[in-house]
Amino acid sequence: MILTVTLNTALDVTHHVRALRPHTSHRVSEVRERPGGKGVNVARVLAALGHEVTVTGFAGGATGRVVQERLAAVPGLVDALVPVTGATRRTIAVVDGRTGDTTRFDEPGPTVTPAEWSAFQEVYGDLLAGASAVALCGSLPPGVPVGAYAGLVRSARAAGVPVLLDTSGEPLRRGVAARPDLIKPNADELAELTGSHEPLRATRDARRRGAHAVVASFGADGLLAATPEGHWRATPPVRVRGNPAGAGDSAVAGLLSGLVEHLPWPDRLARAVTLSAATVLAPTAGEFDRATYEKLMTRVSVTAA
Amino acid sequence: MILTVTLNTALDVTHHVRALRPHTSHRVSEVRERPGGKGVNVARVLAALGHEVTVTGFAGGATGRVVQERLAAVPGLVDALVPVTGATRRTIAVVDGRTGDTTRFDEPGPTVTPAEWSAFQEVYGDLLAGASAVALCGSLPPGVPVGAYAGLVRSARAAGVPVLLDTSGEPLRRGVAARPDLIKPNADELAELTGSHEPLRATRDARRRGAHAVVASFGADGLLAATPEGHWRATPPVRVRGNPAGAGDSAVAGLLSGLVEHLPWPDRLARAVTLSAATVLAPTAGEFDRATYEKLMTRVSVTAA
Repeated sequence: MILTVTLNTALDVTHHVRALRPHTSHRVSEVRERPGGKGVNVARVLAALGHEVTVTGFAGGATGRVVQERLAAVPGLVDALVPVTGATRRTIAVVDGRTGDTTRFDEPGPTVTPAEWSAFQEVYGDLLAGASAVALCGSLPPGVPVGAYAGLVRSARAAGVPVLLDTSGEPLRRGVAARPDLIKPNADELAELTGSHEPLRATRDARRRGAHAVVASFGADGLLAATPEGHWRATPPVRVRGNPAGAGDSAVAGLLSGLVEHLPWPDRLARAVTLSAATVLAPTAGEFDRATYEKLMTRVSVTAA
Repeated sequence: MILTVTLNTALDVTHHVRALRPHTSHRVSEVRERPGGKGVNVARVLAALGHEVTVTGFAGGATGRVVQERLAAVPGLVDALVPVTGATRRTIAVVDGRTGDTTRFDEPGPTVTPAEWSAFQEVYGDLLAGASAVALCGSLPPGVPVGAYAGLVRSARAAGVPVLLDTSGEPLRRGVAARPDLIKPNADELAELTGSHEPLRATRDARRRGAHAVVASFGADGLLAATPEGHWRATPPVRVRGNPAGAGDSAVAGLLSGLVEHLPWPDRLARAVTLSAATVLAPTAGEFDRATYEKLMTRVSVTAA
């Protein structure tokens, strides 16, 4: 089983309006809700690829109940979320029907108590025993210590479970120092971590800081990988246009599935970049279009960098 | 007991952001949630005034559960909401911390099935037996027939219970024809009903259309009443500035409480206009400031119109 950790799960709400006009009232014509947070998105893609996946992190309140009800309906996905007293956050994405642009409002998430954080660490330790790989994803809710991911990386390494870290800012900086097997920063996260805007230099620098391998995502330009086995660039065959929401999470799912299937690095990167493109092209944010995935898969370019 | 009907109850969510910038992502710094919909707001003010009040209408889904949990905590308020399969809508109010302006996103509400609508009508009939007055408030959710309020007005009249109608558009037009005891349109609703933008003429015209009495609200200009006992204008002693959300619902609560206490019309209007001003001045939208209420109460001007 692949384990994904989402400490700040979310109920992702999408509102369609005719046109966004600040400081007025809008009738929402269409409402969609689904479980969110990076690790949850990764898990959904892994489940769609046929992997057994377990989701942990926190869930609480009425929004947490909705998240858990919806996750229960996903085949291949096991819910191991730990209860918290506070309510799981909402993210509201308002889609402007005139331009297609999205305006987001992200709630901060519940304040996690020290007892809840301890309970999570215990559950996490137990789950590691049955995991073939683990992904630690997204932001930290209030109350969780900033060094949280560093501790979770160390536990995974002690248990001999390959660990991927996908976060940003100080939690990423501290997590990298704990020597995760893989990080997947985007351009901004990589620059913030290393102080360098030069991709080749920055990915190598991130490895020196502790990451065993680094796969950096550059949107439509694809992925750049710095690993002990070599350096590669993976580029989608066409420049795709669409909704980039969830594209990074699909790349993480591609990398993780390739890891547990022991694929060579170029094949993992091809899968990740293709899943990413198929997510951008999907009509619903964060889903991926399987036909696109299968069509593009054979045409990705992976070259030595 | 006073009965308030809210067919389209809501979970009112307020998001504070530093500055609203369309088509970007925002971190929400503060989240507030509370039960909403006009009749629910009216009930909360009535309960705060010391009246026993029963809330009916529909509630469903995770949002409906939150609404009901919160209502259970209000002293003097009885929850008689009827369950529906669909989820109670959310309204999201985004407050721009830079300007104080609010941008609203109102979900449409659950689709009510014919069986659910029948179940509601039965509950409503039972509740009328114990009611000293009833207020029918707000918009209709999808599935409820446009003539719904006309039927509910007729049932109340048949049961000998004074009935106040506060809605807009076609549901108001049809409801008025069923001869409610009182309607409380705002300027726009009155103009839409009567085709006249001239307040004195329009309030008289609304009476001719079927309303026994009409109290129209004109924001900071106060109230204009056309009743069988006379015509009055009630004006707040100062022009208040603040958040007008819920001010109309507080006016309805003032009128209803005055009705069941058999106050003369000028006293009912004074109470309504004062509660309205105290709501605008309250720091939280839809609450009313009791100190302001008591201070302003003696200084309201009610004159023959």
